[in-house]
Amino acid sequence: MGNIRSPVDYTTYLQLDKILNSQRLMSEEYGKPAHDEMLFIVIHQVYELWFKQILHELDSVLTLFRSNFVDEKQIGVAVARFHRIIEIQKLLIEQIRILETMTPLDFLEFRGYLTPASGFQSFQFRALEIKLGLLESDRIRFSKEAYHEKFPEDQKEKLLNYQREPSLFDLIQRWLERTPFLKDESFSFVDRYHEAVEIMLEEEERTLESLPIGEEERQQRLQLMSATRKHFQTIFDPEEHEALRKSGRRRISHDALLAALFIHLYRDEPILHLPFQLLSAIVDMDELLSAWRYRHAMMVLRMIGKKVGTGGSAGYQYLKNTSESHRVFNDLVNISTFLIPRTLLPPLPESVRRKLQFHFTVQSDSN
Amino acid sequence: MGNIRSPVDYTTYLQLDKILNSQRLMSEEYGKPAHDEMLFIVIHQVYELWFKQILHELDSVLTLFRSNFVDEKQIGVAVARFHRIIEIQKLLIEQIRILETMTPLDFLEFRGYLTPASGFQSFQFRALEIKLGLLESDRIRFSKEAYHEKFPEDQKEKLLNYQREPSLFDLIQRWLERTPFLKDESFSFVDRYHEAVEIMLEEEERTLESLPIGEEERQQRLQLMSATRKHFQTIFDPEEHEALRKSGRRRISHDALLAALFIHLYRDEPILHLPFQLLSAIVDMDELLSAWRYRHAMMVLRMIGKKVGTGGSAGYQYLKNTSESHRVFNDLVNISTFLIPRTLLPPLPESVRRKLQFHFTVQSDSN
Amino acid sequence: MGNIRSPVDYTTYLQLDKILNSQRLMSEEYGKPAHDEMLFIVIHQVYELWFKQILHELDSVLTLFRSNFVDEKQIGVAVARFHRIIEIQKLLIEQIRILETMTPLDFLEFRGYLTPASGFQSFQFRALEIKLGLLESDRIRFSKEAYHEKFPEDQKEKLLNYQREPSLFDLIQRWLERTPFLKDESFSFVDRYHEAVEIMLEEEERTLESLPIGEEERQQRLQLMSATRKHFQTIFDPEEHEALRKSGRRRISHDALLAALFIHLYRDEPILHLPFQLLSAIVDMDELLSAWRYRHAMMVLRMIGKKVGTGGSAGYQYLKNTSESHRVFNDLVNISTFLIPRTLLPPLPESVRRKLQFHFTVQSDSN
Amino acid sequence: MGNIRSPVDYTTYLQLDKILNSQRLMSEEYGKPAHDEMLFIVIHQVYELWFKQILHELDSVLTLFRSNFVDEKQIGVAVARFHRIIEIQKLLIEQIRILETMTPLDFLEFRGYLTPASGFQSFQFRALEIKLGLLESDRIRFSKEAYHEKFPEDQKEKLLNYQREPSLFDLIQRWLERTPFLKDESFSFVDRYHEAVEIMLEEEERTLESLPIGEEERQQRLQLMSATRKHFQTIFDPEEHEALRKSGRRRISHDALLAALFIHLYRDEPILHLPFQLLSAIVDMDELLSAWRYRHAMMVLRMIGKKVGTGGSAGYQYLKNTSESHRVFNDLVNISTFLIPRTLLPPLPESVRRKLQFHFTVQSDSN
Repeated sequence: MGNIRSPVDYTTYLQLDKILNSQRLMSEEYGKPAHDEMLFIVIHQVYELWFKQILHELDSVLTLFRSNFVDEKQIGVAVARFHRIIEIQKLLIEQIRILETMTPLDFLEFRGYLTPASGFQSFQFRALEIKLGLLESDRIRFSKEAYHEKFPEDQKEKLLNYQREPSLFDLIQRWLERTPFLKDESFSFVDRYHEAVEIMLEEEERTLESLPIGEEERQQRLQLMSATRKHFQTIFDPEEHEALRKSGRRRISHDALLAALFIHLYRDEPILHLPFQLLSAIVDMDELLSAWRYRHAMMVLRMIGKKVGTGGSAGYQYLKNTSESHRVFNDLVNISTFLIPRTLLPPLPESVRRKLQFHFTVQSDSN
Repeated sequence: MGNIRSPVDYTTYLQLDKILNSQRLMSEEYGKPAHDEMLFIVIHQVYELWFKQILHELDSVLTLFRSNFVDEKQIGVAVARFHRIIEIQKLLIEQIRILETMTPLDFLEFRGYLTPASGFQSFQFRALEIKLGLLESDRIRFSKEAYHEKFPEDQKEKLLNYQREPSLFDLIQRWLERTPFLKDESFSFVDRYHEAVEIMLEEEERTLESLPIGEEERQQRLQLMSATRKHFQTIFDPEEHEALRKSGRRRISHDALLAALFIHLYRDEPILHLPFQLLSAIVDMDELLSAWRYRHAMMVLRMIGKKVGTGGSAGYQYLKNTSESHRVFNDLVNISTFLIPRTLLPPLPESVRRKLQFHFTVQSDSN
Repeated sequence: MGNIRSPVDYTTYLQLDKILNSQRLMSEEYGKPAHDEMLFIVIHQVYELWFKQILHELDSVLTLFRSNFVDEKQIGVAVARFHRIIEIQKLLIEQIRILETMTPLDFLEFRGYLTPASGFQSFQFRALEIKLGLLESDRIRFSKEAYHEKFPEDQKEKLLNYQREPSLFDLIQRWLERTPFLKDESFSFVDRYHEAVEIMLEEEERTLESLPIGEEERQQRLQLMSATRKHFQTIFDPEEHEALRKSGRRRISHDALLAALFIHLYRDEPILHLPFQLLSAIVDMDELLSAWRYRHAMMVLRMIGKKVGTGGSAGYQYLKNTSESHRVFNDLVNISTFLIPRTLLPPLPESVRRKLQFHFTVQSDSN
Repeated sequence: MGNIRSPVDYTTYLQLDKILNSQRLMSEEYGKPAHDEMLFIVIHQVYELWFKQILHELDSVLTLFRSNFVDEKQIGVAVARFHRIIEIQKLLIEQIRILETMTPLDFLEFRGYLTPASGFQSFQFRALEIKLGLLESDRIRFSKEAYHEKFPEDQKEKLLNYQREPSLFDLIQRWLERTPFLKDESFSFVDRYHEAVEIMLEEEERTLESLPIGEEERQQRLQLMSATRKHFQTIFDPEEHEALRKSGRRRISHDALLAALFIHLYRDEPILHLPFQLLSAIVDMDELLSAWRYRHAMMVLRMIGKKVGTGGSAGYQYLKNTSESHRVFNDLVNISTFLIPRTLLPPLPESVRRKLQFHFTVQSDSN
């Protein structure tokens, strides 16, 4: 096949005839050309190109994790691809600065012609949210209609299909649940961890007692400390954990949460280095998506104030709210709540270490 | 005088003997040296140095605006200094990345030794908030005590004094109120603006009617449009404006708001170029301070989860809330809500243009 | 006309069917799909979209400056558009980080299929260089052929046409030459400036004499000081200036250089505020283009080492060299060499100030 | 010990009384206060604080690598600390933006008072260069004196001591030389790699022959290709390598270079993941230091032109030259020149894999 190819040149390879001829200003169509509409089109096209790239990376990782065994080498690949997504996300946030060189007055010059087009109709962005694991039930609604009603039939079909496939959340949860080290004839992670937490809390209480602070403040702090104690209970007691899940305040399974905690606590073990980087990268992506929404909301606020978005939505408020509530991996973010000082960490027995080695590397050779 | 000075060298000039010998690790004092505590100290010292610089710039601008006349040259100086503050603020946000290289586990290694020290005790940061115009009554409380009770007597005294002095908000408001162009024998800005807004809204309503959308969506949009109409009413009608002020939803005076709107609408007039840059820079500073608080909150969430801050506060939630509610210049941000397309803008009569010229430049020569 | 338009939706407006279907992986065509080729294509398409936007802004400014009179309002527009270009340039530099997530090994996987396509064939980038003012004779050659021989006939024709049109350098030079204030019955800028420079240099020499340094160092410094004195001579003496032009070490005309210096020295005069911002923005663009080339060269070095580029060029060395020598506005950068402390600056007589006012604003009303 | 400590507060802990009272403006001493001198002092103090932090991290890694065995866990620590240095370096570069808000005119206002203080007297920066591995003989001289003559006796003594201790370059080289896998009864890395390179080069030559390009260009490319072939020879032939070392064009030992190449080529092997990250981080640090010097030079150019630096040096040119020639790890950067496509890579035999495992992890247990 290769030998029949003619050599490419830059313009052909990048299909620049298409890319650079896809900007049609509506303001020109209406006979009132607005200089800044070009920027508006170009920046959104750039956003969509980057979304395509992000989906290219994410899809490849989802494929990796759909297999029953994921070896260390593959985790390394996943981490590298997530780091690429992260770099792209950082750029997407910085890119808002460019749009901000357009003043509200300049935007108003052509904004009227865009109705009812709206960023809510970005198919790729919805696809991204779904593939990360955003549930339809967790979406903030901006009208009575479901979000997918905004899309033409074929795109709607695709989005509903994506919702049925296992998301990154699902696959990571399953991968975590399979980490086989929590219990052993000679070592129970939960028990040893429980003991360490007790020591830490008691120490903190002793410190509090010796602080030269007023009675009111001491009471206030004691109250906070008791809240902390209760919070730890939710990881020791599977029933409390389930209660949180039912109430919608936690989503991940108990086994997966314990595994993620284990990886966080023993991240310095070389064999857990990549698994920890994987979880970290996922939290980074989640956080950056959240930061992008927030930054985007701020920009909208400055550009159009609290007016209605071009698609008829109450733009700013909607975007600002999704910034927090469309986060998918809160449970991983919140793991920091359960960390304890390294010095209190029970040492990992050699038997567990060997098991980990086997799980992450040798096993996969049989693959 | 110059000839009695001995020449300086780099180390002496920068007083590096003091700067570089001001890091004492508490973890070392307690006999358990934690490598990462150095970073914790250094980064906070850097933050405080930058706060000092920000206050140096802000104070110099406050002094300028305390005078009765502020000429164009001085506005230029103010804009340049605010732009410097803005660059520093951007850096302060980026700097969080460095702190994030410290893991929660590493932080827990020395966190216990810091109690009860807390970032809430940053005198300079409180001073900055006050000088910008944050009212004590608008502060989110994190305990029953007033925020200044956390400070030693002399610092508390200073903070209370700052609260009594005119803040940037006060001075900018007064400066805006003095802009003398809103009314003229031949031109009334408010009236002409009101007419233009009517034309814009009617046009938008006509567009909405012709859109091929369902009845439900049309009703929803009509409702939003009627909300927009009501919102404009709050700037036309001084009484509605006052009602908003009393309810705490608006802070700026009606005259100042109109002047700021005028400056935004006619920003392309060269004489309004610097006044507009001034208002923009203020909004930028406000937004960046808000972004810093938000980013800081996210970092705290990741570092210590929803645990209690070192000063006993519920760190994350407090920081996140202040991000929005400690903003001082919301009224300026919201001006974008009142903008209209440039093409609908009534032309500025020559008489007004001349008055502006006089107000911003000639007048001050008599100073 | 508006009523015959059907309303747009997001996908149609942005022509996403074309944008998102313009990625064809050569490695797939050859039957050996390389995951990272997608990134390679997408990032270059994004670069080209941004180049299109930069040209859109630059062209609009060139049109403004082709007219005989440029009023203050138009300078304001030019500055705003250059600031947008600057923000885009900053992003283009940051964007390299994303390409750096591709390792050399991954690049080698599909690099062979791209021959002979090469970034040297970017028509838009060449157009940008020409429109800024890069002369063909100043281009570093990477082969015996002229750079435009790399392009198909129609593109080559266009590039040669651009070379014949006045560039930003030409237009800015002409605009500077027209600034009418250098001489006046009561004020000669050059003479007063010359006097001030003499005072400054004498003061510096006196300081040097009083420094407690060794004889060798003193001699060395005296030598440097004499070089400084000679350097100033090149601006006082039009003949020395012309000699530098002939030797290729200076490009700008003597009148334009003096005008630019005047604007730099009196930038605090409100009427010179925008002209100064204009010159600054041009220097920023020049510097950022240079920084981009440098950063790009570093990336190429890391990616392919000192091997040959895909287009057959010795990539790294060529890019690194152009970073410095393809700069167009060196003369504006070097103006800082001629600055003197503000306190030594001769005050501007009222007559000159009035003339400036007339030149930049009133005059244009007759336009 | 802990119980005798009194609790700290924020101001005491950070020693803010010292930090915030270490700014004495020379311009004030001379009776002509210059507003911008504060920025000049503060930004340099911030730089020095960050240099202190960088040295804190670097010293801790040097200590790790001074030991005879460095296990995987320790490599992980080193990588994390280098990543922190990298984040700091990025900030140091961005920080220049803040200094650029000071105009040359403002700088000239107090510049005269600083003579002869100069950034060349930064003890910490010199220490950093030495500890990374910059040789005194490779330093660009800016006067006849050795660089350390600029320092007071005690600092000079320290710098000379640092020069005698093993630098990061020395320690990394030794660590690389110890990687025990290059030869084996059944596998010789160099031989297999040599074969792969031959295949690659032959393929490239065949491709070149089939390209529809002119004869002149073909000759030019053939020439470049022959240069590539010669370049590879320098890694196959230890004698050619030694010749390059003698001429000063290569610094690293042949064994270390081969080991580094091996790590680059087989970076996807989990056991080589951290060693590869280590080498990458070192190259990043080297590159960022170079970028900082370059950016710094550009800023100086804009600020003072080609005038003499405050310390009497020809500032811009010196800084620009050091940007390239003070790089320490060029040999690691140039490794990309020797990479080959992953598909041509000879597979690693199980025996070698096991040896690596042993070298990087098990061995250290006996430590």
